[in-house]
Amino acid sequence: MILEKIKSPKELKALSISELTALSGEVRKALLKKLSIHGGHFGSNFGIVEATIALHYVFNSPKDKLIFDVSHQSYTHKILTGRAEAFLDESKYNDYSGYSAPYESEHDVFTMGHTSTSVSLALGLAKARDLLGEDNRVVAIIGDGSLSGGEALEALNYAGEFDGSLIIVVNDNDMSIAENHGGMYKNLKELRDSNGRCESNIFKNFGLDYMYVDNGNDIATLIDAFESVKDTDHPIVVHIKTQKGKGYAVAEIEREGWHATAPFDIETGNRLYSKNGADSYSDITALHLLKRMKEDKSIVSITAATPTVAGFTKERRDIAGAQFIDVGIAEENALAMASGIAKAGAKPVWAVNSTFLQRTYDQMSHDVCLNSSPVTTLVFASSIYCKSDVTHIGIYDIPMISNIPNLKYLAPTCKEEYLAMLDWSIDQSNESVAIKVPASKAICSGKVARDDYSKCSYDIVRWGNEVAILALGSFFSLGEEVCNALEAKGINATLVNPLFINELDTLALDKIGENHSLVITLEDGILDGGFGEKIARYYGNTKTRVINYGLKKEFPIRYTLEGILEENRLTTPQIVEDILKSK
Amino acid sequence: MILEKIKSPKELKALSISELTALSGEVRKALLKKLSIHGGHFGSNFGIVEATIALHYVFNSPKDKLIFDVSHQSYTHKILTGRAEAFLDESKYNDYSGYSAPYESEHDVFTMGHTSTSVSLALGLAKARDLLGEDNRVVAIIGDGSLSGGEALEALNYAGEFDGSLIIVVNDNDMSIAENHGGMYKNLKELRDSNGRCESNIFKNFGLDYMYVDNGNDIATLIDAFESVKDTDHPIVVHIKTQKGKGYAVAEIEREGWHATAPFDIETGNRLYSKNGADSYSDITALHLLKRMKEDKSIVSITAATPTVAGFTKERRDIAGAQFIDVGIAEENALAMASGIAKAGAKPVWAVNSTFLQRTYDQMSHDVCLNSSPVTTLVFASSIYCKSDVTHIGIYDIPMISNIPNLKYLAPTCKEEYLAMLDWSIDQSNESVAIKVPASKAICSGKVARDDYSKCSYDIVRWGNEVAILALGSFFSLGEEVCNALEAKGINATLVNPLFINELDTLALDKIGENHSLVITLEDGILDGGFGEKIARYYGNTKTRVINYGLKKEFPIRYTLEGILEENRLTTPQIVEDILKSK
Repeated sequence: MILEKIKSPKELKALSISELTALSGEVRKALLKKLSIHGGHFGSNFGIVEATIALHYVFNSPKDKLIFDVSHQSYTHKILTGRAEAFLDESKYNDYSGYSAPYESEHDVFTMGHTSTSVSLALGLAKARDLLGEDNRVVAIIGDGSLSGGEALEALNYAGEFDGSLIIVVNDNDMSIAENHGGMYKNLKELRDSNGRCESNIFKNFGLDYMYVDNGNDIATLIDAFESVKDTDHPIVVHIKTQKGKGYAVAEIEREGWHATAPFDIETGNRLYSKNGADSYSDITALHLLKRMKEDKSIVSITAATPTVAGFTKERRDIAGAQFIDVGIAEENALAMASGIAKAGAKPVWAVNSTFLQRTYDQMSHDVCLNSSPVTTLVFASSIYCKSDVTHIGIYDIPMISNIPNLKYLAPTCKEEYLAMLDWSIDQSNESVAIKVPASKAICSGKVARDDYSKCSYDIVRWGNEVAILALGSFFSLGEEVCNALEAKGINATLVNPLFINELDTLALDKIGENHSLVITLEDGILDGGFGEKIARYYGNTKTRVINYGLKKEFPIRYTLEGILEENRLTTPQIVEDILKSK
Repeated sequence: MILEKIKSPKELKALSISELTALSGEVRKALLKKLSIHGGHFGSNFGIVEATIALHYVFNSPKDKLIFDVSHQSYTHKILTGRAEAFLDESKYNDYSGYSAPYESEHDVFTMGHTSTSVSLALGLAKARDLLGEDNRVVAIIGDGSLSGGEALEALNYAGEFDGSLIIVVNDNDMSIAENHGGMYKNLKELRDSNGRCESNIFKNFGLDYMYVDNGNDIATLIDAFESVKDTDHPIVVHIKTQKGKGYAVAEIEREGWHATAPFDIETGNRLYSKNGADSYSDITALHLLKRMKEDKSIVSITAATPTVAGFTKERRDIAGAQFIDVGIAEENALAMASGIAKAGAKPVWAVNSTFLQRTYDQMSHDVCLNSSPVTTLVFASSIYCKSDVTHIGIYDIPMISNIPNLKYLAPTCKEEYLAMLDWSIDQSNESVAIKVPASKAICSGKVARDDYSKCSYDIVRWGNEVAILALGSFFSLGEEVCNALEAKGINATLVNPLFINELDTLALDKIGENHSLVITLEDGILDGGFGEKIARYYGNTKTRVINYGLKKEFPIRYTLEGILEENRLTTPQIVEDILKSK
């Protein structure tokens, strides 16, 4: 096995083309086995095996810097840079991140998992190199899907006037996570169809030099191409055509379904378990919206390249037709466009993962809230329960958006409340609304939820004395548990479901203040800038004491759920212990 | 005078071309007089007089929607839509906003003052129109400078596959605020030079239909052009060449200096007062950075199209040479590139107005802080003292960035502290740092500031008892005043300059807690998610009471400084009154 001998990219350079080609087969085999057992990003990694081998053959990492956009295509890079065991040794599958991670290797420059950042980051590395008088090469490797993101487009434009060496490899597999969206993809097709020779060329129009490689899965061709540009003294795009999912037949055909995968049976391609189910909030969302859309043609669901976040599979998108918009990887345009839709009297619902909501702070503030546009934003995966890589953790949403003026941020605790809030938000036309979609499988409370959320009022679930527990959203269950544990200790605590993240029900708070000496807040997110601090401020100049529970402000790397909850004193016994101590 | 008869765009339609041309002269005269007395955005407004007249002649606002990007070019639109008095009647100069404002007129669809948003917003209006089965036209008018912003580029790309009518007027005056930056501007020049006929065309590459109008200051030509496209059933770009500052000789030549202007003498063009001075933090910043850059070639100053925010006039940019980067209107690229520069060992300092910092939330979190890249961010105009239009208010910075993990946010109170923090931040390589540059003219305390800000420790300026005042950044002076007023009442208050916005000096806080029953926090920003709430949380489970002073979370429209301070109980007598009541 050649692969086992590759401890660093150096060993690669002694190999012949036929050995490198054999190596690519070994890499694919390792990828296939690991992903079938462990799951992970499939299609782009399978498409870029040869290009990664060729890059490491031609360039000298870590002196030369290879920046893999979004890291969805970095597995082969990991294998070739001393981390093959993460793919060869089943006992070590979980020991490495699925993303670029400088703490793992000097060959990874940045921790990164959001799209469209690589060209900007590479421009920075190149600029610093030139200022410091160094002579390393810098290569950004970016997929065609990621090109539509504003950060990438801004960087391509600036690269067009950058006065120094920079290589931008555009890995074109003619797909984003789902299909690509936007006019530029017609030009990429023209370029592919004309072997890079058509007059119309978006890269050249950004001021960039350009070369095309039609067979982006052929190592010898790629090596020649990279050799020919490696000492170019100005920015150049190397546009390579690759095949998403290459080497695994079902993935070559079902490209959206195989962008990323859960564990599967190699023979059949059948998944060993399905990600969503009828009780997932994603499916609940899509089914509910499809029903509403059928009755009301002005309702429109929007995504930025992640349609299944809200359960919109290909089949459901087809049913929704013109009432479903995928703008491609372009969160800014998605949300600003939603504001326009709302201002003109239609009813936009945009669904986004918390971690990508970060890309739209200005649009949320300036385009939506400043205009009180009645846009409904559904924030998914905004919970510590959604265990994830450090690049995709969603626990920062409350401080991020709840402090923007004119935005109502709601936290349902069950399916009934969620759908009631969604319906209310769609049907009103006065305010900008976001809903923190619970992380767990849907809980049916069996209760009828209120149908009007225009005025903030908390739901006091149980009235007691001494201790009041304000348990927000998906931490409501934790609040219930604490309440029950306190009851066992003879304490009759009050339990509140606040529902409203960033408004205060001062009537309720004043009433609580009268016969409770201690108020506990629980929130599924970091404490800094969050829900609990607003309660602490409200009671600041009173005798009522407040303890806020939530997460520490940090970027936690490779944590366990139990560990991080315990570390933040978020287990029932810890909270009860604190309460007993504070009484 | 024709102008006085134009109460709405309807009256325009009865005029002949020669009358419309005469009208354009009257509009320019009114603009010149008002801007000479009142100041405002000059160059783009003078360039687009004819195009605005032609747009209102051809289209039927408010049924048809005209969306002026960033509103820097909306004065003629305001004049033609019933608001001429704002430009003709000196006593009413201040009665209208300088930006698009729906509360003023049904002809303004959005409150907007950030660049690059118009195409997305217009796409939304067009989409809603089609869903609702309406038949109005939608026109986005966007300047060439604004095209480089990610939100605009994402929208151009999506427009290229949008299945409906949309007109995008690109108002090309070959300038941003300063010169344009990026490769696409070479293509715009080619297009202008070839009368729109060159093969290479970035708009076509985004999938858009295209027409070119060389004389964008000729009403008859423009009317013909707009008439010819108004019923197009798909998105089309109308690229018009206009002259920035047209009709006022000095502004036609000195285009950067006349992007916006303070009041001036019409005869000579001399400004009646200058915006900055030796005691402005902008000038202090540029002069200090130029000195440091001369000694250290790895220091690089970065802007996104607003170089003078940090005092970098054309002359100073020339001195800085390769150590100054203007990426154009492209904040995302600016900050992500800074992260790359820092990771490669050089020292980036990026200066930005608080309101535009909003565009980089994800870059600050994902590209910079997640990587602990030692980038220095200077946040200007983040104060209620910087009175501004609602579109540009900068009082949201503390909740926005201070809750991002791994970011140290510092608040100097005087020039000495500011420069000490700036030097420390440039010279360290461990953490991501932002500095909230004070809003006022520079205060020299005469004291030597500490030179190390790696570890949080507050500066206890004066030690007293009972009441402690934590007065942050530019509200430190207010804290001093309150302290002095309390002294006159026999109260010996403690005064603290916290310096650190988002870290707690728990030693100091514990010590304060021991012999103070009341802690007051003062911050120049909204309270929600801010500095004071962190203090309230810290003391939440103690006997120490806390009152937080700062601003209400809102988008205040056309406020007076005195009014808003009083409304938020931010005057010394009000605070003293509250303290006496709470003791």
